[in-house]
Amino acid sequence: MCVADETTVIEHMVSSFLRSSAQLNTLQHSDAELVRLNEEMILAVTTDSIAEEIEHGLYDDPYMIGWMTVAVNCSDIAAVGASPLGLLLNQTLTYTLEPQWVDEMQRGINDASRRYAMPVLGGDTNYSVRLHMSATAIGIFIHGRTPVQRTGSSPGDHLYASGRLGSGNAYAFQKLSGCAGQTNWFIPVPRMTEGALVSKYASSCMDTSDGLIAALDQLMAVNRFGFVLTSPPHTFLAADALEVCRARELPHWFMLAGPHGEFELLFTLPVAHEEQFLDEASSIGWQPLRLGTVTPEPQLMMPHPKHSIVSVDGARIRNIFTRSDRTLDWFLGELSQIEQNWRMQS
Amino acid sequence: MCVADETTVIEHMVSSFLRSSAQLNTLQHSDAELVRLNEEMILAVTTDSIAEEIEHGLYDDPYMIGWMTVAVNCSDIAAVGASPLGLLLNQTLTYTLEPQWVDEMQRGINDASRRYAMPVLGGDTNYSVRLHMSATAIGIFIHGRTPVQRTGSSPGDHLYASGRLGSGNAYAFQKLSGCAGQTNWFIPVPRMTEGALVSKYASSCMDTSDGLIAALDQLMAVNRFGFVLTSPPHTFLAADALEVCRARELPHWFMLAGPHGEFELLFTLPVAHEEQFLDEASSIGWQPLRLGTVTPEPQLMMPHPKHSIVSVDGARIRNIFTRSDRTLDWFLGELSQIEQNWRMQS
Repeated sequence: MCVADETTVIEHMVSSFLRSSAQLNTLQHSDAELVRLNEEMILAVTTDSIAEEIEHGLYDDPYMIGWMTVAVNCSDIAAVGASPLGLLLNQTLTYTLEPQWVDEMQRGINDASRRYAMPVLGGDTNYSVRLHMSATAIGIFIHGRTPVQRTGSSPGDHLYASGRLGSGNAYAFQKLSGCAGQTNWFIPVPRMTEGALVSKYASSCMDTSDGLIAALDQLMAVNRFGFVLTSPPHTFLAADALEVCRARELPHWFMLAGPHGEFELLFTLPVAHEEQFLDEASSIGWQPLRLGTVTPEPQLMMPHPKHSIVSVDGARIRNIFTRSDRTLDWFLGELSQIEQNWRMQS
Repeated sequence: MCVADETTVIEHMVSSFLRSSAQLNTLQHSDAELVRLNEEMILAVTTDSIAEEIEHGLYDDPYMIGWMTVAVNCSDIAAVGASPLGLLLNQTLTYTLEPQWVDEMQRGINDASRRYAMPVLGGDTNYSVRLHMSATAIGIFIHGRTPVQRTGSSPGDHLYASGRLGSGNAYAFQKLSGCAGQTNWFIPVPRMTEGALVSKYASSCMDTSDGLIAALDQLMAVNRFGFVLTSPPHTFLAADALEVCRARELPHWFMLAGPHGEFELLFTLPVAHEEQFLDEASSIGWQPLRLGTVTPEPQLMMPHPKHSIVSVDGARIRNIFTRSDRTLDWFLGELSQIEQNWRMQS
């Protein structure tokens, strides 16, 4: 199913739902659902499952499955800037799992829960023929603090990432091509503290759970603006992503194009707030990466080492990997086609 | 896996989790997790999946699957007496589902959401080879209102149900024996309004999602008291459950022993509150059913039409159906064995 279809399915569903008048966000405009409780408090809630990642063989290590069940949900709470309140686990185990395997998964859940300071409130444990893990994370804003959403940026705002990018796709590339080796685990860094700081200053924010290009495309769609990246991808790729590109002779931007992100935060900052934000970031030992600028034109422009600057069709790239018959080779073929088109244009 | 094992697995998991100091309930002591937000507000959250019911063929109608995904979660919110705040849906659809089938499931979700006045805040939609539906429901107590938990009853309290019982097991019996017919749908009645009223007066409450005997056994375990039922099961069975017993020549208590409950509320009421509670119930057109009394002895005593009064081993009965190799015939055989033992004792 392609993105257009999936979005249509979801929009069709949502159009008929009973909605809450207390809900602050609309569909696709926030990483977490935001519900006003009173003048002083806002609740942030999100649910995510990792069924597809397990089914496609991307996650098979029990510790990682446990960690990611927590991480994918906490990342959405971090992206709106809420403080962690608690987690509900929805675990469907299989009858044949070894107790040690389940213990190892619980260890991953526990470690992530502690790293994100997100207590486990409870959950539901079922048994089935197929492993299915999901969770719900709940965050809160108190004392009149407010969330940052995906919308709100303006042309001229600076685009930042909370850290180096591409590790998620580097892991996926290694795993799906059977070369996991030393990248056997993918343990994204929690950005809960950084998210709280981002929400004080940023005009918009979302996490890179689906990769950088998908996130930028989503931000463009809801803000109706565009982005120009100020330096080529290799300058902000993580070491493992650079290494995969070097070893496999892949263009660096491939590590931003896959749908398996690294759970960093991507946010836009009004220039007037930048100095104070960077000072405060520095005071907690954090160095956000400047990636580019918001532009009035609704397109994504990226410096390319071989072709000066190229226009990236984010919607097309997102579509590639959301077909049900996706394979790694086919995906790489499609990306190579885009790279060739740029080469012919230059 | 038997109940003892499952409880052990869950207790083992929970013992290592990071817990929240704001959480009011402990494991198994409440139908929903309860988190204090401030002096005035308490959050109630719960998550439940219906994977097992789908997998065992108990639910195959799309409307019913949609309805139940919402209902099982709302029922837990009703059982603590919270006001509905919102729902998160976690849907894993399959690639081969017909759009009409998905629409019909959404219609079930929508209808239940409206009947429970529980708005849909958002969710996550995935695709897999196997259908998996779960949700998280969120309720809230404001203005200092407080939840009712499973614990808190005292000997002498009266035991009530919010409505007639056995429909859930009657449906399951018909469905699993291939005689669904007119009981093609099982659409439990929302008890949200009643739950709010119960929480004002009751000393303890839980829903009968796992059937009456399992619920009583759970209440006994956490309160360390017992129950004596004051009248035999046929006096409080629902019409469809009575009909199944008549047509298939089954003892009435079988409809209370299966694990597929009817999502009524089961609660204990201090005698001093009874009159005022019943007046208020009557004013909203609701007639709760008096089932029995809390006893100091930790056992469940039930009048039986043929054997005066019998002692029901709830833990044993719960165990029967939680083995992975369960079949309807085997289950009925085990229950018949218990019935025969009573006959021999009398």
